[in-house]
Amino acid sequence: MHLKEQTVKEPVLLDFRTHPDRYLHWKLTLEGSVAYLRMDVNEGGSAFEGYELKLNSYDIGVDIELYDVVQRLRFEHPEVKVVVMTSAKQGMFCAGANIRMLGGATHAHKVNFCKFTNETRNSIEDASERSEQIYVAALNGTAAGGGYELALATDYIMLIDDGNAAVSLPEVPLLAVLPGTGGLTRIVDKRHVRRDLADVFCTVEEGIKGQRAVDWRLVDEIVPRSRFVSRVDEKAKELAKLSDRPSDGAGVELAPLERVISETTMSYPYLEVSLDRAGRSATLKVQGPSRETKDLEDIKAQGVNFWPLAVLRALDDALLSLRFNEPELGTLIITSEGDAAKVEHDDQLLYEHQQDWFVREILLFAQRVFKRVDVTSRTTFAFVEQGSCFTGFLSDLLFAVDRSYMLDGQLEGDQRPVPKISLSRLNFGLLKMPNGLSRLETRFLGEPETLERLRGQIGEPLGADDALTAGLITFTPDSIDWEDEVRLLLEERASFSPDALTGMEANLRFAGPETLESKIFGRLSAWQNWIFQRPNAVGEDGALKLYGTGKRANYDRRRI
Amino acid sequence: MHLKEQTVKEPVLLDFRTHPDRYLHWKLTLEGSVAYLRMDVNEGGSAFEGYELKLNSYDIGVDIELYDVVQRLRFEHPEVKVVVMTSAKQGMFCAGANIRMLGGATHAHKVNFCKFTNETRNSIEDASERSEQIYVAALNGTAAGGGYELALATDYIMLIDDGNAAVSLPEVPLLAVLPGTGGLTRIVDKRHVRRDLADVFCTVEEGIKGQRAVDWRLVDEIVPRSRFVSRVDEKAKELAKLSDRPSDGAGVELAPLERVISETTMSYPYLEVSLDRAGRSATLKVQGPSRETKDLEDIKAQGVNFWPLAVLRALDDALLSLRFNEPELGTLIITSEGDAAKVEHDDQLLYEHQQDWFVREILLFAQRVFKRVDVTSRTTFAFVEQGSCFTGFLSDLLFAVDRSYMLDGQLEGDQRPVPKISLSRLNFGLLKMPNGLSRLETRFLGEPETLERLRGQIGEPLGADDALTAGLITFTPDSIDWEDEVRLLLEERASFSPDALTGMEANLRFAGPETLESKIFGRLSAWQNWIFQRPNAVGEDGALKLYGTGKRANYDRRRI
Repeated sequence: MHLKEQTVKEPVLLDFRTHPDRYLHWKLTLEGSVAYLRMDVNEGGSAFEGYELKLNSYDIGVDIELYDVVQRLRFEHPEVKVVVMTSAKQGMFCAGANIRMLGGATHAHKVNFCKFTNETRNSIEDASERSEQIYVAALNGTAAGGGYELALATDYIMLIDDGNAAVSLPEVPLLAVLPGTGGLTRIVDKRHVRRDLADVFCTVEEGIKGQRAVDWRLVDEIVPRSRFVSRVDEKAKELAKLSDRPSDGAGVELAPLERVISETTMSYPYLEVSLDRAGRSATLKVQGPSRETKDLEDIKAQGVNFWPLAVLRALDDALLSLRFNEPELGTLIITSEGDAAKVEHDDQLLYEHQQDWFVREILLFAQRVFKRVDVTSRTTFAFVEQGSCFTGFLSDLLFAVDRSYMLDGQLEGDQRPVPKISLSRLNFGLLKMPNGLSRLETRFLGEPETLERLRGQIGEPLGADDALTAGLITFTPDSIDWEDEVRLLLEERASFSPDALTGMEANLRFAGPETLESKIFGRLSAWQNWIFQRPNAVGEDGALKLYGTGKRANYDRRRI
Repeated sequence: MHLKEQTVKEPVLLDFRTHPDRYLHWKLTLEGSVAYLRMDVNEGGSAFEGYELKLNSYDIGVDIELYDVVQRLRFEHPEVKVVVMTSAKQGMFCAGANIRMLGGATHAHKVNFCKFTNETRNSIEDASERSEQIYVAALNGTAAGGGYELALATDYIMLIDDGNAAVSLPEVPLLAVLPGTGGLTRIVDKRHVRRDLADVFCTVEEGIKGQRAVDWRLVDEIVPRSRFVSRVDEKAKELAKLSDRPSDGAGVELAPLERVISETTMSYPYLEVSLDRAGRSATLKVQGPSRETKDLEDIKAQGVNFWPLAVLRALDDALLSLRFNEPELGTLIITSEGDAAKVEHDDQLLYEHQQDWFVREILLFAQRVFKRVDVTSRTTFAFVEQGSCFTGFLSDLLFAVDRSYMLDGQLEGDQRPVPKISLSRLNFGLLKMPNGLSRLETRFLGEPETLERLRGQIGEPLGADDALTAGLITFTPDSIDWEDEVRLLLEERASFSPDALTGMEANLRFAGPETLESKIFGRLSAWQNWIFQRPNAVGEDGALKLYGTGKRANYDRRRI
């Protein structure tokens, strides 16, 4: 590519850890069962140099805070049953992703940024659907592009009817790119906007307002300015009654995540990441629990230190950091180490108490983190070695990766236990992929009898032979072959084109049905990534580059 | 893009009309209920200059013949119940798409070529599933890349077990692109190859042979060389017994399609295409039947001249020609003209005789042609004007397009009848989109009550008001606004980025579930199109460009 990329200066390392005390762009107000989340983007607070965040437009920094607050609301505020997203600015809910940032960022950043914003919007939907913490968009001003896409992720959209405020997806006419964070999919698939009206909507720069926005299903309700605040409040209270979240539960504080980073490692509680820059891979070693948890009360007493939650938080941060900060580490290797019995014990507690709000949050978080593995555009391998503890929900990682290797036997001089893996009830439907199936259902698509057989093996420790026969592991080299095979595997993978691997993996991972989510990550994102490479958008004369200069893009008119 | 494109010389106009007498690359042998289709690619017979079609590799010319023969077998040979695809070359079934052709072709040609080959492979599956003309792949030698993808489109894959012949998808390791004609989707979604084994398979250049190919579900059967011919014959005869096709039916010859092309028109029987190069649009005016058809006997007597079949053949050729030969005509406008009563009459005959093999073929062909509209990367509009005849299956075109406009009233000085449209039973499930739903089901997703109401309106002529109220038409300008509105619409559309429109339309057209087919056109093709833009594949140092030079590609190692 001879496109002049990166006219904005990206920081060396992005940090996804933040705290409400440090938010630059969001204001959270708690009023009993209703939380008000106000977008109030600080113009000067951009994550990179080279642009200002005008009109409540956002960049990765704004979205990191949004991700943080959505996560905290679920864990720290069981009493919050409805979250009202609105804006602190007059006449503008949100203008979408910052265009100067997009115009200046690298292709890699644009793609990673869109993926992360998509995941956060999915987590908003996940909160409404599964945590019963229902999101409402109170559009007190125009919601344009990504701003309207943010609203689309909520359960109920209220638009102020003041003759000005509109919803719009002006990306195609204005910028020659797509509404890239789910908008196209959500209007037709979630809100059932008729496809021809959707086509019109997506080509009208100024958007749609008033009654027509309701008639076309773009919003659920319009409210006159004079009654807007009271009607939003009323609707929020009405929706709060539908939630099963406890009014008296004590929240679990998401204490700062401990992390120590060196040139070649990222260390967290229960997770050690080693970076091999020469080999272009990273190894994520998950460590088993260090203590035994007694019961639900003990889980709550431990809170953020309860092993499954602690390990998930570490994994989540590591995956995001690797995506943004280590683009050349093309292969992620997942290993584990620890006491399988302790893992199994915690796993059973999760299963038994799945109805409890906090345990439900942990399970839903596990689902979200493992989905991040599914949609991460890196090759993922799992190595099952001596002393490992792939059991229960951890074993789902074996089915999330592109391939798994299990040592058959023991390496010379290594006295740790021979590798075993085992399944638990959590592998059978509580950890769904973006396609709506469990990883085992996807793995054994069209083989209900295999799933039934595996269900009969729950809790049974499986050695290499058994695991191979059961179809749970790709290859089981013995102690003589192990080192060579693993070395050759990593060398071979590192020799392939990163782009071809991304495309291949994105197609092989999601057999079976598609959902709103998988359509967004598959169809929509793939098209957007294509467009993000096309001169009509990102060339020197492309619309994204010329936006705001007063110059018109000069398009190559060939349809492809 | 500053990539040096088009090092092979593409012809000015591609012609999709051919005849077995003129085939360069395929040999058809009919043996009663079994047809043998042998691939025997003529090395010197490439469609463009600049490469040779070695090792049964193919280009658009080879595929145009394949499309023609698949189509003819269905219409001209009702007695053929099984088609055995095999090769006339020793040791090589098919090496896939020609790499030098791909390396030298424009991005537009690559994308269009892949789409057309995909459609042809889908039509092979359609024949097996719905015409009961079952395809078998008899791999008498290696099937690599697109060659194996061709086999994947058949119902049963037999591989010679001679110690050499293998099946493979070597695109990722060898060329840094994807197996782009459905391979990745079909292995996991159709053949249920386990995803980790699929990952291995797609990275092994030399492919998989012998028993392992069966164990991994890559082929259905391996057969020793000595028994290969007899076993294939036996299997074909066995499968032929499952088909409901008539042994004594008389085929309908697909006589040469009449077509007259000028600088600004393409004229067919029942279809007039006008090209507006300045406005960058083409108008396809479908003409109603000129005579009345009595009954099934009369349908058969007319054969290829039976109006629905004649109009579909014209539409099919026009769509393909526009895609390849007129890349800058970004908007296709569908109009109609004729006697609606006659259309309705033919439409009812199709419905009543849908069990007859020939009528079934016409309906299935209608489904395939309309699907081409769905996946054509051009904006599609329909204009319902005075004297038009959008009724029955023709009205499905109104729901295939991105938007429809219907004149409310009469234009000054135009005495033709006021526009009306009507539905028929064919609109309710006999013409499915790639997503497996009818166009009305997709249009009214999640509204079964609307579908029920529309079913009650079958046969009722609907004026502009009624059609608008029923949700069947996007807009209904009156006689005062019509001309301005249409002109502004076309000007506006022509001003947008062609790429952004392609991506937008590909996402808005397919609400609802996804199928093998829609996953291939959505997820897989979108990723391939992206990769076809990436320097790692198509740059001067990209793998696709360097293939055969002995030089190794030098990849940008960032994962995106």
